[in-house]
Amino acid sequence: MSSRTIQVSPFDLVVFGGTGDLAARKLLPALYHRDLAGQIPDDARIIGVSRRPLSREHYSTFVRESLDQFVKAADKNPAAIDRFVARTDYQPADAGSDEGWSELAALLAAGAERVRAFYFAVSPDLFAPISQRIRQFGLVTPQSRVVLEKPLGKNEESARAVNDAVAEVFNESQVFRIDHYLGKETVQNLMALRFANRLFEPVWNSTHIDHVQITVAEDIGVGDRGGYYDTSGAMRDMLQNHIMQLLCLTAMEPPDAFEADAVRDEKLKVLKALKRIDDRNAEQMTVRAQYRAGSVGGKSAAGYLEDLGQDQSKTETFVAIRAEIANWRWAGVPFFLRTGKRLARRTSEIVVNFRPISHNIFDQTAGHVSQNRLILRLQPDEGVTLEVTIKDPGPGGMRLRSIPLDMSFAETFGVSNPDAYERLLMDVIRGNQTLFMRADEVAAAWQWVDPIHAAWAHNDQRMHTYPAGSWGPSASVALIERDGRSWFEDAE
Amino acid sequence: MSSRTIQVSPFDLVVFGGTGDLAARKLLPALYHRDLAGQIPDDARIIGVSRRPLSREHYSTFVRESLDQFVKAADKNPAAIDRFVARTDYQPADAGSDEGWSELAALLAAGAERVRAFYFAVSPDLFAPISQRIRQFGLVTPQSRVVLEKPLGKNEESARAVNDAVAEVFNESQVFRIDHYLGKETVQNLMALRFANRLFEPVWNSTHIDHVQITVAEDIGVGDRGGYYDTSGAMRDMLQNHIMQLLCLTAMEPPDAFEADAVRDEKLKVLKALKRIDDRNAEQMTVRAQYRAGSVGGKSAAGYLEDLGQDQSKTETFVAIRAEIANWRWAGVPFFLRTGKRLARRTSEIVVNFRPISHNIFDQTAGHVSQNRLILRLQPDEGVTLEVTIKDPGPGGMRLRSIPLDMSFAETFGVSNPDAYERLLMDVIRGNQTLFMRADEVAAAWQWVDPIHAAWAHNDQRMHTYPAGSWGPSASVALIERDGRSWFEDAE
Repeated sequence: MSSRTIQVSPFDLVVFGGTGDLAARKLLPALYHRDLAGQIPDDARIIGVSRRPLSREHYSTFVRESLDQFVKAADKNPAAIDRFVARTDYQPADAGSDEGWSELAALLAAGAERVRAFYFAVSPDLFAPISQRIRQFGLVTPQSRVVLEKPLGKNEESARAVNDAVAEVFNESQVFRIDHYLGKETVQNLMALRFANRLFEPVWNSTHIDHVQITVAEDIGVGDRGGYYDTSGAMRDMLQNHIMQLLCLTAMEPPDAFEADAVRDEKLKVLKALKRIDDRNAEQMTVRAQYRAGSVGGKSAAGYLEDLGQDQSKTETFVAIRAEIANWRWAGVPFFLRTGKRLARRTSEIVVNFRPISHNIFDQTAGHVSQNRLILRLQPDEGVTLEVTIKDPGPGGMRLRSIPLDMSFAETFGVSNPDAYERLLMDVIRGNQTLFMRADEVAAAWQWVDPIHAAWAHNDQRMHTYPAGSWGPSASVALIERDGRSWFEDAE
Repeated sequence: MSSRTIQVSPFDLVVFGGTGDLAARKLLPALYHRDLAGQIPDDARIIGVSRRPLSREHYSTFVRESLDQFVKAADKNPAAIDRFVARTDYQPADAGSDEGWSELAALLAAGAERVRAFYFAVSPDLFAPISQRIRQFGLVTPQSRVVLEKPLGKNEESARAVNDAVAEVFNESQVFRIDHYLGKETVQNLMALRFANRLFEPVWNSTHIDHVQITVAEDIGVGDRGGYYDTSGAMRDMLQNHIMQLLCLTAMEPPDAFEADAVRDEKLKVLKALKRIDDRNAEQMTVRAQYRAGSVGGKSAAGYLEDLGQDQSKTETFVAIRAEIANWRWAGVPFFLRTGKRLARRTSEIVVNFRPISHNIFDQTAGHVSQNRLILRLQPDEGVTLEVTIKDPGPGGMRLRSIPLDMSFAETFGVSNPDAYERLLMDVIRGNQTLFMRADEVAAAWQWVDPIHAAWAHNDQRMHTYPAGSWGPSASVALIERDGRSWFEDAE
């Protein structure tokens, strides 16, 4: 156990969807890593639940196979794996019937005083019925909490229905709506830079910041998720949650404390201050598009309709939005948001572009004075880079040069950043909701997104296309260039 | 010739004191390096002048020996040394008589149209008589300029006398008062950081900066310069020029252009805005001291009086001052200045200490939030470091850590910084006075320093002592600690 690791309290974690893809890829490996680091107390248990009639032994095999596949070789420690597998248990149960629930209750009774976390790694349709069963079988203790995976609805109304159903069983203080982007090291570093340095907050406003770009780009297509994806689209799948959360953390006022409600109050204010985009202005402020056949990373890639196996679709696989926050800090500063599938490369980043210097005192021999830029990278490699201008080192006159300063230093310290789920799962156990979304935030995000969806439909706004492997449609370039700015990858 | 090197115009450089220590150690090696870099045109000449009756051949030997001793092996190129030596010439001449001056005039007549630079690498007593001879023999051309080495007087009156004598022969636009500190790479970088970045200027004021420290520390004693030094002292030798120039560049308002008079106007405003220290407050605001025997770098070192061979002395070898600049930008921000001989190590640095964050939103588990600090190092290794607080990389909660960001990057680019004299000598040839002191600046610096000297005498202010190899007297620590601050090396 490393000296920097503080053990959490003993807990029982019940994973609904315990045999699913998320459990295998993310939750079990994340819990294993925390166990390996010594953060999980000896008697903590992880109980998989799903409809599948597996024995505890079968589930052990599933857990082992998951770790084998999704934990990297260097972290595979046979003794630690054995210890971890011994923590796991399994109970078949179905939200649609009483079967198995009494057994689950009996299993949990052994840890009545402990932290008890229910993780809903299942379709949101099941959030209400599972919550009902949990109440029916008296599984909610004072120390209970529930983790909800996205998507939380597909508009304000459906999100509210889900939240209301869960709220019948759990208090808001027990509900952890997870967005794994908020568990990223870079998001933590954004908070540290903004609020633990004297240098940044004074320039973090419209006087000194020209515009902000937030990009969440995937190189993959919809794959075999096409059926689901076509009912969702880029805006619901990525923009309404991940991008809007990043927007909030970038733009929020300093909270009085780095605590759940203080932070979430500030994020909510940002969401509420977003200028409305609707039938009147959606054409100017938004671009939607679908990918067509192209080439990604040197390999040919099919178009969306082919991936979908359909002749047509009204679902966007790309969206770009020019957003504005109508408050004192940000008035007049555009926030350019975009996300899409089958783009040139996988990258998630926030790019804070500072204004040019007020006045250039140097003559032309000093060269062009670049604008300061802060780049917060969440994927694929986490990191923070500040671009500053210095004198080009060496002899000669005053020649200027822009250089990237590494502000994250993970490489220097030789640590590997934990997966976001590791941090967030431990926060659930600790009962720390700071990095989780409150119900009113989810509602407010939908309140901004819903009128855009409505406008697209009302105006029959053009569905642009883009070749797989590009950075989206030319309309996205036009959206930002009309403002005299350029997308980061073009500006490089 | 590197692609970044632009040749200067053809020139004749006349070095008075051409056989002296400065010529051997600094001027000839600097000119050689610029020649090696291809910056000096083929027909440029360097003419040594002194009383010593040397032949041109003897002087060639002196030049070769100087390069041999003061150019590092990697830069010694036999062909380049031959070429450089061939540029040099010598003329014996004495300010006290007419002898040799006609010959010097004849030598220079061959380059009447060229840039002609007279470098006064001699005692300031000789500035006036040499200037007179230059006038008498008609050596001043429109393209002429003169370089004055420090010390420029020992108080306002004597400085004015020197400047006036030179002004009888040269226009102010022809006078280059050299302070080699201003030729340092780090000083250039300070200008680039302040004025080529949006990020720094908005926080470069009393709202965000807590205090500034400027230290010029030498580990050597007075050596065989004791006789001269005892008539000068730390304040005249180092503080009135180097430290006050660094103070000006740190504190000045942005000039409208990075040009000589624009920059010097702003520096002058800083000097004039310095709060007066005199009989009333010198005891509180200043500390003077002399070193006593001690140990430097593991070797025992004698005290100042022993070095001097005297029983007593009223000359300080250390001075520390709490200065304040009475203007809108800096009111209330102390500038702690100090310089001394026989201190713990050789270092020259400006340390800009930012205020603490306004409010700490993080809880105690995040650890102490350090204050941002910008450290500009001029000696021994030039460099700029910005200390920022980031999230301690890796798993776990929000733990903060202060890290040093290298803002100079000379190492990264694999270039070695040129000696300050290289840059400044080329500026002389180019006629660029930006990094040289104007007469009114020198006068203004003395106007601030003179009342301190007077107060020390009037009040018979205590001469503290400090052991060689220490950071000065405890009174210097008390000076800054009374304000609740600490000298940088103590704060580390």
